Amino acid sequence: MLRQVALEDTHAVAIGAGILGTGGGGNTYLGRIWLEQELRQRGVNCTVIAADDVADDAMVCAIGTMGAPTVGIEKLLRGSEFVTALRTLEDHIGSSFAALVVSEIGGSNGLRPLIAGLQLGLPVVDGDGMGRAFPELQMDTFAIGGVPLTPMALADSHGNAVVFHHLDSPLKAEQYARSLTVELGGSAALAMPVMSGEQLKRFVIRGTLSLAKRMGDVVLASRLRGADAADEVASLANGRVLFRGKVVDVERRTTRGFARGKLTIAPFGGADEVMDIVFQNENLVAWLGGEVVCTVPDLICILNLEDGEPIGTELLRYGLRVAVLGLPAPIELKTPEALAVVGPEAFGYPAIPFQPLPGNLL
Amino acid sequence: MLRQVALEDTHAVAIGAGILGTGGGGNTYLGRIWLEQELRQRGVNCTVIAADDVADDAMVCAIGTMGAPTVGIEKLLRGSEFVTALRTLEDHIGSSFAALVVSEIGGSNGLRPLIAGLQLGLPVVDGDGMGRAFPELQMDTFAIGGVPLTPMALADSHGNAVVFHHLDSPLKAEQYARSLTVELGGSAALAMPVMSGEQLKRFVIRGTLSLAKRMGDVVLASRLRGADAADEVASLANGRVLFRGKVVDVERRTTRGFARGKLTIAPFGGADEVMDIVFQNENLVAWLGGEVVCTVPDLICILNLEDGEPIGTELLRYGLRVAVLGLPAPIELKTPEALAVVGPEAFGYPAIPFQPLPGNLL
Repeated sequence: MLRQVALEDTHAVAIGAGILGTGGGGNTYLGRIWLEQELRQRGVNCTVIAADDVADDAMVCAIGTMGAPTVGIEKLLRGSEFVTALRTLEDHIGSSFAALVVSEIGGSNGLRPLIAGLQLGLPVVDGDGMGRAFPELQMDTFAIGGVPLTPMALADSHGNAVVFHHLDSPLKAEQYARSLTVELGGSAALAMPVMSGEQLKRFVIRGTLSLAKRMGDVVLASRLRGADAADEVASLANGRVLFRGKVVDVERRTTRGFARGKLTIAPFGGADEVMDIVFQNENLVAWLGGEVVCTVPDLICILNLEDGEPIGTELLRYGLRVAVLGLPAPIELKTPEALAVVGPEAFGYPAIPFQPLPGNLL
Repeated sequence: MLRQVALEDTHAVAIGAGILGTGGGGNTYLGRIWLEQELRQRGVNCTVIAADDVADDAMVCAIGTMGAPTVGIEKLLRGSEFVTALRTLEDHIGSSFAALVVSEIGGSNGLRPLIAGLQLGLPVVDGDGMGRAFPELQMDTFAIGGVPLTPMALADSHGNAVVFHHLDSPLKAEQYARSLTVELGGSAALAMPVMSGEQLKRFVIRGTLSLAKRMGDVVLASRLRGADAADEVASLANGRVLFRGKVVDVERRTTRGFARGKLTIAPFGGADEVMDIVFQNENLVAWLGGEVVCTVPDLICILNLEDGEPIGTELLRYGLRVAVLGLPAPIELKTPEALAVVGPEAFGYPAIPFQPLPGNLL
């Protein structure tokens, strides 16, 4: 497994996180150049540890940003937001964190804990709460397992910091934090949940940072050979390529803190079945010729056929030539409790049953 | 001056606070019956102290509710909100409050610190930060004097509690807390600002709880005599009656956390000049026959001619027979720094200069 992230690893980790982002989690190009700048300035590598290396009674906290990816590529962070959020939370609870946790491995949120870890001199746990990206706070294995989402802290680039001391449900945590994020300009650093090492080990999806690195390595190696990485990347995560084609339509609007929309991909050559995909920050459901072929929590990942780079929902546009991958969700997301929170019905598709792709992500 | 508030005082204090509320600050009938219930249940009176009785290094905090009065009369508080907000703030800053402060004497917010004082066993300072009610957080003498609004705490009836740890301007405090209040259902307990006794004494408007009591006493005495209390109440606060008439039109909408609107009052008898008043929770500007006769920060107070009871903007309706009082603002609200925050321009009337009524409230 990954023991550190150095300058030479950032591109691969960013690509893998982008793929696992299934369209969301924030633009990984921006996350990567920020991470590289921190690595260069500080002259040390990011330390990565296994969840099982964390003592049961140590306190850890996840960190990332909240907001729509369409906002994140225009409103850059100042750089101090993670430290502000984490320090505010430490002050509030009166204890210090021993390690940082990736809240969602997908997209730039897979890289940001590495940045915060460098800024605070803390190791980052190899694993996360989603094995992908999801648009809402309550959609991780920590919340599903019953870890309280509060106290949590939001911070913006002006040093504004807010602690949600107690909220009586994960859905309210999502609702109130989202609303405040919109007020703060549409993106903000979010530190939560605070956990003990024991809770971390019970609920974390292990090894997802390592998986991101392996996926990125495959893409970069294929690119050197001039080969299409899609099949190899898919098989690395026990999935398959669902479709190859050209984006012919994108509807996208940024509303109430989310990038929402739909895209249509037409096949190359003579075939006439198109693929439709709907998204809320992340890709949610894929239809081929009108038939559902993949749904949340399974991962629907879009790769640029030119270079294997993942394409976030904020960058989808007419004419892109893409491969659509379907990867099976981690097993932790397929329990009845998890599916109630991250299955198709939770996203407004009650008529679509979850028909899992075979296998598991890891 | 007032040294305590007992059961026999509540009606007078509620009437006076209602008058000083200039239409806002929350319905005083509801505030009064809640205060009376707490007094009965606890069997002790509210202790009132002078600002000068607070030690320089003691910590005090103001408490009230945030929200539109139109919401406040429909969505009642559970009763535990003030304690939740104040305790959360004490936990966050790591020290205890020695006394509570009235953030705005106007409306039910003039009574709520008395309730919280009973619940927590704390005295309440005779004075406030407005000498009236204003719709927004930054509009008090503490904020105008430079006391930071953060940390501040919001709490709702479900035990949800949020600490605004640091916000870089009073306007952002207003914006973010208002937005969260709307999410919390349109009204919430708000504890802020945290001050030292030294800051309190520098910025508080002294004696406004006593003034409210005296105004209420005049109304109740007039009612017993069957007399119109308007002139006597006005002169008690160095003001005058601007108009008497019948409400003939009310436009009112609850939008983005405020009750906003306009009312028209027609004179009795043959005269044809009507009075128009616009409000944002509180009455802002009064025109008589198209001429401005009173503006913020001076107080525009509407009394029911039947019984002298003040009428909040949430209860204005066609047919009410009313007296409109104009009371001069406290001198603290008429400095250039204060007028920049609470003058007509701050409420969106840049073309209307503030032409103060003669004298001062106290």
